[in-house]
Amino acid sequence: MKNKHYEEALAALEPELVTMARWARAKGQRVLVLLEGRDTAGKSGVISAIRGPLNPRQCRVVALGKPSEAEAGQWYFQRYVQHLPTAGEIVLFDRSWYNRAGVEKVMGFATPEQVDAFLAAVPVFEKLLVDDGIRLFKYWLGTDQAEQEERFAERVADPLKRWKLSPIDVQARTLYDEYTQAREAMFAATHTAHAPWTMVNFNDQKHGRLTLIRNLLDRLPDCALPEEPIDWPPLGHEPLPERYELIQPLPPYPVPGD
Amino acid sequence: MKNKHYEEALAALEPELVTMARWARAKGQRVLVLLEGRDTAGKSGVISAIRGPLNPRQCRVVALGKPSEAEAGQWYFQRYVQHLPTAGEIVLFDRSWYNRAGVEKVMGFATPEQVDAFLAAVPVFEKLLVDDGIRLFKYWLGTDQAEQEERFAERVADPLKRWKLSPIDVQARTLYDEYTQAREAMFAATHTAHAPWTMVNFNDQKHGRLTLIRNLLDRLPDCALPEEPIDWPPLGHEPLPERYELIQPLPPYPVPGD
Amino acid sequence: MKNKHYEEALAALEPELVTMARWARAKGQRVLVLLEGRDTAGKSGVISAIRGPLNPRQCRVVALGKPSEAEAGQWYFQRYVQHLPTAGEIVLFDRSWYNRAGVEKVMGFATPEQVDAFLAAVPVFEKLLVDDGIRLFKYWLGTDQAEQEERFAERVADPLKRWKLSPIDVQARTLYDEYTQAREAMFAATHTAHAPWTMVNFNDQKHGRLTLIRNLLDRLPDCALPEEPIDWPPLGHEPLPERYELIQPLPPYPVPGD
Amino acid sequence: MKNKHYEEALAALEPELVTMARWARAKGQRVLVLLEGRDTAGKSGVISAIRGPLNPRQCRVVALGKPSEAEAGQWYFQRYVQHLPTAGEIVLFDRSWYNRAGVEKVMGFATPEQVDAFLAAVPVFEKLLVDDGIRLFKYWLGTDQAEQEERFAERVADPLKRWKLSPIDVQARTLYDEYTQAREAMFAATHTAHAPWTMVNFNDQKHGRLTLIRNLLDRLPDCALPEEPIDWPPLGHEPLPERYELIQPLPPYPVPGD
Repeated sequence: MKNKHYEEALAALEPELVTMARWARAKGQRVLVLLEGRDTAGKSGVISAIRGPLNPRQCRVVALGKPSEAEAGQWYFQRYVQHLPTAGEIVLFDRSWYNRAGVEKVMGFATPEQVDAFLAAVPVFEKLLVDDGIRLFKYWLGTDQAEQEERFAERVADPLKRWKLSPIDVQARTLYDEYTQAREAMFAATHTAHAPWTMVNFNDQKHGRLTLIRNLLDRLPDCALPEEPIDWPPLGHEPLPERYELIQPLPPYPVPGD
Repeated sequence: MKNKHYEEALAALEPELVTMARWARAKGQRVLVLLEGRDTAGKSGVISAIRGPLNPRQCRVVALGKPSEAEAGQWYFQRYVQHLPTAGEIVLFDRSWYNRAGVEKVMGFATPEQVDAFLAAVPVFEKLLVDDGIRLFKYWLGTDQAEQEERFAERVADPLKRWKLSPIDVQARTLYDEYTQAREAMFAATHTAHAPWTMVNFNDQKHGRLTLIRNLLDRLPDCALPEEPIDWPPLGHEPLPERYELIQPLPPYPVPGD
Repeated sequence: MKNKHYEEALAALEPELVTMARWARAKGQRVLVLLEGRDTAGKSGVISAIRGPLNPRQCRVVALGKPSEAEAGQWYFQRYVQHLPTAGEIVLFDRSWYNRAGVEKVMGFATPEQVDAFLAAVPVFEKLLVDDGIRLFKYWLGTDQAEQEERFAERVADPLKRWKLSPIDVQARTLYDEYTQAREAMFAATHTAHAPWTMVNFNDQKHGRLTLIRNLLDRLPDCALPEEPIDWPPLGHEPLPERYELIQPLPPYPVPGD
Repeated sequence: MKNKHYEEALAALEPELVTMARWARAKGQRVLVLLEGRDTAGKSGVISAIRGPLNPRQCRVVALGKPSEAEAGQWYFQRYVQHLPTAGEIVLFDRSWYNRAGVEKVMGFATPEQVDAFLAAVPVFEKLLVDDGIRLFKYWLGTDQAEQEERFAERVADPLKRWKLSPIDVQARTLYDEYTQAREAMFAATHTAHAPWTMVNFNDQKHGRLTLIRNLLDRLPDCALPEEPIDWPPLGHEPLPERYELIQPLPPYPVPGD
């Protein structure tokens, strides 16, 4: 997909995102979006696209690292629960409690019993949230291995992207099908009427982002709210310049092309 | 400044940001950047530019709302302290404890005694952090009122930017000079050898971003570290396609131009 | 019940509490005790009795105040969840999520719909905790109004106890039966096989405490663990006295009777 | 000191503690008490005595364990700062930031450079708190080794007290004088006009408690406040008994002596 077309299409969605956020704020709605998928799938890209036009004080991103020792001893969902949205918030989870049924299962970080217990608990846990009024969306970003290999290769080659490569990624390559199987088992257990999964093809990441955002917006109710008019009188005097007294500004960066 | 030139120049800085982050991680360095300035100055823009190429698990943004009742009763710095960087982290404060000497002073949310006590405490507080090894940078983003008026007008006109306007902004227009005076008083009290302020002209936001990032990078020590080679063997089989079983992907978003 | 008999009986239970705590630590068990009941029932007294002999770093008490604005907008259970025990901990809740079915219902702080939704959610929520291995105990401390009146009168008369009286207590007197009805409705909805309620008569608080602690201990599995021997060699020299150099100790408090 | 005399004397102090707490609440005062001393000195005992008559929602005890990895990488004071009192609170620290100059120094958990940096930072840090209006009290509880040996021996012998013994205690016996030296060095660096240390002899723990509490009360300003009268009308009907419907109370615990 061409950059230009992507940007036009995204620009057309942004006002709807802003409208949705205004509605969430005004109505005290809580929106929770889980983003799952293989490494390189494009989770951060779609997160950036969603939160780009929104108020960072309203739209939070949650990307938890590995649990501390105290957290590892807690109820499995506990460390996620504290980041759930309060009234008026939109929260995007970059990976989520589903780690247990994905990477933890495939890499053997969780026992089969733990995975089974998790899969049994999830629909119940999510129903509690949904019944409480949280609007929960669960997206899985699909990527063929050919595409994934290309992106991995880019990360290896590009020093700017090296940090995105972890030792787990190296192993993930040889476990592509195990991840697929884990995902299907996860879907079988957790694709419920109250909290269904949505699969989005992210082989073309830009196209995937648009598809996901369009779907998210379509599944929220009509968010239109009358704009309150802003009273914006003329300034009434010549605008003032900065007066630098104690400290002078830095000399500007010399720009190529200037 | 032309978009193309900006993007080229930023692209040239990004590898340095990534190198710096790798160094911070490897050496357990803590980097703390405070971003202050008038409304519309461009704090969020420069924050996005800095964190763009970085790992969101390493580079955090802190933008605190107004204090809760419990926080209002605490030591003034307490709610900020809990967000300071741990070893290996880069933390960007979108506004900071300096609120007390800026908006709180000008709008009368803090008493003159509170402002004076704050200005006396800041150099001492910051010295504790710096002596502990935190690398503290304080930037003030300057904007002439003519420029600010233009940006406010844009926010009024553009539904995408309306949320950026608060009632306090409306008042800030008539208090432009009071903010200048407050800033100069703040500089007089808190521009110290151990934690100096840096002023950056953000009348051209793109140019301001480059100037600020260049300055930040120049003030950190040599961050170069040898790259560890990554062992990246060939996959050894045909890459696998996604196998969608239980759930099929969404139909792709129809793209204008396709 | 005579003080002397109470103290003897409690002294007999304390080693069992300590043994239980040692077992919880060694086995990574999580013990969660909810204490509910009318004002004056004696919740704090039994909490003190339980935690008296235990390590305060292992046995925590949770007594939440009224929710902040952010908490009020969250999933109802969220602010409680963050205090659940981690492996090895014993947590005592002085009131709990059941507030919603008690004081909030009777005083009209929650709507009937909120109370109904809460009562429907509780058994599901608690099952998640119990299935995760948390050992959950729910006690309700019963008190006849004659007894309650006496205790209220004592609080009114005794300046030491005045702080225990809140305006809500004053109203609770006239709502004694409403609280009874609310409790029975709560029992009907939440007395489940996986998380049953236990009622304890606290008309005699000392007797109530012993009864409750005995029951708690009886419902935990055999907690005996072999003690590891402690190697405790003789000191090998005369014990040293304190050497006060820079600061001398305070003169001792003059004790009546000395 | 005889138990009876102790209890009489403590009972005489309790109304003053309650008055002080009422004053702190009414005036939004923040009271912070640090309790330091050798193992077995009696820190928990005096904490229990202070908080005994107070509202647990107002008087908090803070006893931090060893730092997590993230905490270990932070500004040294950071994890303590988040527990400082808010307006109206009384906070008792069972050990405190002074760990670095005591156990961490003597046991070699901190480098000499870290200890020196800490000792240089403390007076500055504490002055920030005191200047902000926090009422800070620092007590060191002294114990001759003869007394300490006796208490250790009791812990070894008494299964109820075994959990109080840690491997560090075993070593502390042979390091009695090193702890004395560390304390004196700490006093030399941190016994300041704005935050002086107070030494209390805890060879007799009961006597020590009274001495410490008396000193604390004497150093707070006049806390007397007029009591608001409580309107406490007669109930107006026969008091109601509990009506147990769904669940009957447990059979009472059989009490020796009954």
